[in-house]
Amino acid sequence: MTTLEIMGQNAKAASRVLMTAGAKKDDALNAIAQALIQNSGKIIKANDIDIENGRAAGLTESLIDRLKLDQGRIEGMAKGVAEVAAQPDPVGKILEGRTLKNGLKIEKITVPMGVIGIIFEARPNVTSDAAALCLKAGSAVILRGGKEAINSNTAIAEVMREAVEQSGLPRDCVQLITDTSRQSATELMQLTDYLDVLIPRGGAGLIKSVVNNAKVPVIETGVGNCHVYVDKSADLEMAKNIVYNAKTSRPSVCNAIETVLVHKDIAKEALPLIKAELDKKNVEIRGCERTAAILGDSVVPACEDDYAREFLDYILAVKVVDSLDEAIDHLAKYSTGHSESIVTSDYAAAERFTSCVDSSAVYVNASTRFTDGGEFGLGAEIGISTQKLHARGPMGLSSLTSSKYIIKGNGQIR
Amino acid sequence: MTTLEIMGQNAKAASRVLMTAGAKKDDALNAIAQALIQNSGKIIKANDIDIENGRAAGLTESLIDRLKLDQGRIEGMAKGVAEVAAQPDPVGKILEGRTLKNGLKIEKITVPMGVIGIIFEARPNVTSDAAALCLKAGSAVILRGGKEAINSNTAIAEVMREAVEQSGLPRDCVQLITDTSRQSATELMQLTDYLDVLIPRGGAGLIKSVVNNAKVPVIETGVGNCHVYVDKSADLEMAKNIVYNAKTSRPSVCNAIETVLVHKDIAKEALPLIKAELDKKNVEIRGCERTAAILGDSVVPACEDDYAREFLDYILAVKVVDSLDEAIDHLAKYSTGHSESIVTSDYAAAERFTSCVDSSAVYVNASTRFTDGGEFGLGAEIGISTQKLHARGPMGLSSLTSSKYIIKGNGQIR
Repeated sequence: MTTLEIMGQNAKAASRVLMTAGAKKDDALNAIAQALIQNSGKIIKANDIDIENGRAAGLTESLIDRLKLDQGRIEGMAKGVAEVAAQPDPVGKILEGRTLKNGLKIEKITVPMGVIGIIFEARPNVTSDAAALCLKAGSAVILRGGKEAINSNTAIAEVMREAVEQSGLPRDCVQLITDTSRQSATELMQLTDYLDVLIPRGGAGLIKSVVNNAKVPVIETGVGNCHVYVDKSADLEMAKNIVYNAKTSRPSVCNAIETVLVHKDIAKEALPLIKAELDKKNVEIRGCERTAAILGDSVVPACEDDYAREFLDYILAVKVVDSLDEAIDHLAKYSTGHSESIVTSDYAAAERFTSCVDSSAVYVNASTRFTDGGEFGLGAEIGISTQKLHARGPMGLSSLTSSKYIIKGNGQIR
Repeated sequence: MTTLEIMGQNAKAASRVLMTAGAKKDDALNAIAQALIQNSGKIIKANDIDIENGRAAGLTESLIDRLKLDQGRIEGMAKGVAEVAAQPDPVGKILEGRTLKNGLKIEKITVPMGVIGIIFEARPNVTSDAAALCLKAGSAVILRGGKEAINSNTAIAEVMREAVEQSGLPRDCVQLITDTSRQSATELMQLTDYLDVLIPRGGAGLIKSVVNNAKVPVIETGVGNCHVYVDKSADLEMAKNIVYNAKTSRPSVCNAIETVLVHKDIAKEALPLIKAELDKKNVEIRGCERTAAILGDSVVPACEDDYAREFLDYILAVKVVDSLDEAIDHLAKYSTGHSESIVTSDYAAAERFTSCVDSSAVYVNASTRFTDGGEFGLGAEIGISTQKLHARGPMGLSSLTSSKYIIKGNGQIR
């Protein structure tokens, strides 16, 4: 057996205990929260090594910042874990039920997934966030983080495993793969005998690798080529504020927009207003010919590829469209199905946009930046699903559960 | 572009029309039902070729019977399609919703999957069953049936496409891959740009091939190593009837049982009763040593593999266990997670069994044969999911939908 198969077997065994662990899961989570703070010195020391290695490897300052842990950030991680403990148990919820004519009483009830794999990149706080959510949802978790954070992740995982064991659950409820080779990631993606689902958390490259290599069920997350469409009936002041917020409040996240589509009838009035606002943050505009004709020389000519990209930066593609339907067609072609918004005062346009746009979150007159588990009232999120199976949009605890039917009879045969 | 990529593109285009097709979907389904009957002569003629080829290829009579279409069976197919038309629309159902503190009104609503791929084996009636369910759920479907039924499937698909077009929807709502090479199946499994989900319907070999080769999201279906556990407190008359029904009413289907586990305290009394009943259908018993000691020479010694197999035949593995927990452990090791039943009169045993057994349908005092969309009151089913993602157990129309969030505001920014 390979190391990963053994980890899989251990996770499976732990998951059987978790199936009926009930409130013990919360005890374990609270123990983790406490232990993270108590062991913050040890974790920071491990993190220092990662930071040093990162600097030596020439990581950018923004990556170093994502990697960095200090007392405050560790307290934040602990607080996150305690908040997950405080959420209602997603397991054991009766989703539906009825009594059949033959007297069988049937109910559909939420149950744990079993064993969940999480592959993630730089941020070490994901280690505790993801583990806490999986544990609360009654599943054992196998974590595989990026090599940049390996020392931090190892320290955090050790602290968590110790705390879980001390609270009376198997320490293998949480496991970390310490081999950060590409090989170990591929092996995890193909651990079909043990893994019930794999959730990659990271950029487009990671997601693509998972889709290409995984044999276990996967929930794709996070790639967001998001749009705002400014309809001809839009309140232009509102449109300006929504575009500015959706582009510039945090350009590096997946719910930030990358392209604005503007109806031709109001482009002449709307575009200069929007540009003036975006100029405050020096946003580069890559526009179509009609955009350039209105906004002038500062516009960089947009190429086809600009409409298909996540810039994740202070860059915005802009296109003038002839109609609402051209906007909808553009989205069908270029959107990654994450979040799109229409700014309009026209009832029929709002209804058509929400019906015909096939994305996980479709907005009318609001910023796409709200696509987030916390903002939606789902509690902490494990990621944002951009595929259609199982979960779509922000995934809270309930997305980490499966279901089963329980059928009670008194001797019924068919 | 390959033939399949073109089919994918056409399906995607058709799916955009289906998103908002509403009651037109029912018109198309009723047109299909009518057309199947009107064209039954043509379909039977095509089927005759498949039957002739099948005989020449040496197919067993039971396979020939599965392949065979006659007027009655075609009327059955038409009736099935009309029944799907009569079901409520699974699209547009509001699953949840609330108003957030900032005034955003958020709702989660069911939407079509988009493009669904179905790979299936011998029975040509699956062509119309599966297409009808996908169409009703607002998705375009790409069908890929077995080579044995290619002439029948082609005729049925042509009739359906014609009917769909005459009712005003794109004929590419339904497409059939006529290339039945292994290559075309593999290509379908990897059509990531166009397929939102792939559902294989068939035996363990097909499922395994899909798990190994698919890059698109898959719902695994149908492999059932199902069990009845006869607890020490069981009503033995009930146990006998349930075992007999679950094993012999239709041994070739996935919800039939393959193994009976019997508590040691009642084995001496229960096993002879059960065996006497099974003898009526000449069921072969493959038993553990304790079983053989009680039932004598007619018992074939069971090997490890017998507990892991789907016999799909008049063969039953039997094992005497020391306790309920040994039964639960046996299931954790050998069950495929389809359906299991406990026969008991003990409240605590029933609760422990339903809590700890991790299968899609867990029964108390009833036959596993009820695991079926129709029996569960879900209407026609597309298959029985034995995995944990998206859908588990019998999948009705709602399992063929995804969801999206619609968020309505009046200028909210974050």
